[in-house]
Amino acid sequence: MALRKLQDLVDIARSKGRRRLVVAVAQDEYLMDALGYAAKNGFVDPILVGDKYEIARKAEITNFDLKGIEIIHETDTTEVCQIAARLVKRGEAEIVVKGLVKTSTVLKAMLERENRVSENTLFSHFAFFESPYYHKLLGLTDAAVNIAPTLDEKVQMIRNAVDIYHRLGIMNPKVGILAAIEVVNERIESTVHAAALKQLNLEGKITGCTIDGPFALDNAVSTFAAKYKGIDSSVAGDADLLVTPELNSGNILYKSLNFLGGAISAAIITGAGVPVVLTSRSDSDKSKFFSIAFAVAML
Amino acid sequence: MALRKLQDLVDIARSKGRRRLVVAVAQDEYLMDALGYAAKNGFVDPILVGDKYEIARKAEITNFDLKGIEIIHETDTTEVCQIAARLVKRGEAEIVVKGLVKTSTVLKAMLERENRVSENTLFSHFAFFESPYYHKLLGLTDAAVNIAPTLDEKVQMIRNAVDIYHRLGIMNPKVGILAAIEVVNERIESTVHAAALKQLNLEGKITGCTIDGPFALDNAVSTFAAKYKGIDSSVAGDADLLVTPELNSGNILYKSLNFLGGAISAAIITGAGVPVVLTSRSDSDKSKFFSIAFAVAML
Repeated sequence: MALRKLQDLVDIARSKGRRRLVVAVAQDEYLMDALGYAAKNGFVDPILVGDKYEIARKAEITNFDLKGIEIIHETDTTEVCQIAARLVKRGEAEIVVKGLVKTSTVLKAMLERENRVSENTLFSHFAFFESPYYHKLLGLTDAAVNIAPTLDEKVQMIRNAVDIYHRLGIMNPKVGILAAIEVVNERIESTVHAAALKQLNLEGKITGCTIDGPFALDNAVSTFAAKYKGIDSSVAGDADLLVTPELNSGNILYKSLNFLGGAISAAIITGAGVPVVLTSRSDSDKSKFFSIAFAVAML
Repeated sequence: MALRKLQDLVDIARSKGRRRLVVAVAQDEYLMDALGYAAKNGFVDPILVGDKYEIARKAEITNFDLKGIEIIHETDTTEVCQIAARLVKRGEAEIVVKGLVKTSTVLKAMLERENRVSENTLFSHFAFFESPYYHKLLGLTDAAVNIAPTLDEKVQMIRNAVDIYHRLGIMNPKVGILAAIEVVNERIESTVHAAALKQLNLEGKITGCTIDGPFALDNAVSTFAAKYKGIDSSVAGDADLLVTPELNSGNILYKSLNFLGGAISAAIITGAGVPVVLTSRSDSDKSKFFSIAFAVAML
């Protein structure tokens, strides 16, 4: 089984019924279109936490229908994030969506011991791309959270990502570890990490996926390029997930696909026990909508 | 003035007349199509150095017409590179094209004191992309040579690149320094370098260009994204040149544009006094041809 389109995530989301989603600092006009569309599609039931007057004003501007939607009034953004985290902890919300607040404030509230729903404390960013130049959805970790992950952190990032594939029914995703070249060079840490991650997979310490690398990007996504390099690997040219060396390359690849590659993406932060949806203002409404669908689909 | 298409480089190359180009270890069947096409277009006059029997055999396979082409017979690849470097030093060749030999062997020969034609000893990789998602040719440095450039090395890489723009008639290229975010974060070296490079440009220590950054990629290439972030910069959304933080991100961006972005590229190594054309087997024949045209255009 493979996911080919972001619409596949919407279809899965629809099959899950209506899920409770909490928006932290919800007076965000750039979010309301996507949120309204997700509610209309029947897969979310939003709880809006924030300044109720501002929420009402932004809803009016964007024609967002507030009828029947729960609003919790709170003006202090740190407290808003606490409320959202507590709703999740009590099982009253299954997804967190970041509104007009810094990502770090949301994640900090969810990481506090009394709010945590998962023993795991490594959050990581995961994005799915629908690209006109690839034959299925292409996953990427990490474009937004981990600056310079250690080998241990990469192991956890891969586990976070593999859990997503399993939840979506892809039981053995192909994981390509990216670097600048296809061979181990001790001066390029990403190649050393790649060799170690591949070995950990072979030894059964990272399970539920097939890991290979190091790959230059072309060999991970193009069988043509892999053939010319003489690379014989089931992952080559058919990767489900790309693991980038560190934040710069992850973010640059994310932006390259979206802004110079004709792709659309859906992204979440994973590892917190429940999916966290972050969207930036410059993301398209479509991308925001697909991100919410993605979060529901993986529940 | 702006360059919009790689064909513009071909047009400039044609205006330069026929230039002498030396191919080091020329028995490379993957190069011959592009080389033959460049010769037919009238802008190069190749000298082939390598095993003349193998050259003849590969030429036959690929229908490459050897009539009137100078061949220097040498089977030892290190010696082949020495011959190529000496031809350049004596002014008998103006461009070096890497054939079936490691890049490092070619560059090492050119770096030897008696072969050098430039005081500068920092080589860097420069690529032009023609992308369906950008309004002009987009330059990138460095996708292939410098692993983890220091600030000083980035200054030289930018000087190497700016020299190319000036040679092509673009006298004030817009240079965007890429990172993962748009603000300085002392934990992300690329953002610190970006601020320093911008300042060096303002102080007149890097001239002939306008430098700005740090930019996440979207802000450098999309006025829409830059507007949403509130970025006011003449470089934002209109960059001529992108400077990547280090090799991983440079190589991943290069491959992303070519393999997941529908772009075609032309690339050279600059800083050696004469352009060096490296093409990899998986590059398309078009891309190889444009790279040769690019090298001639900048003479």
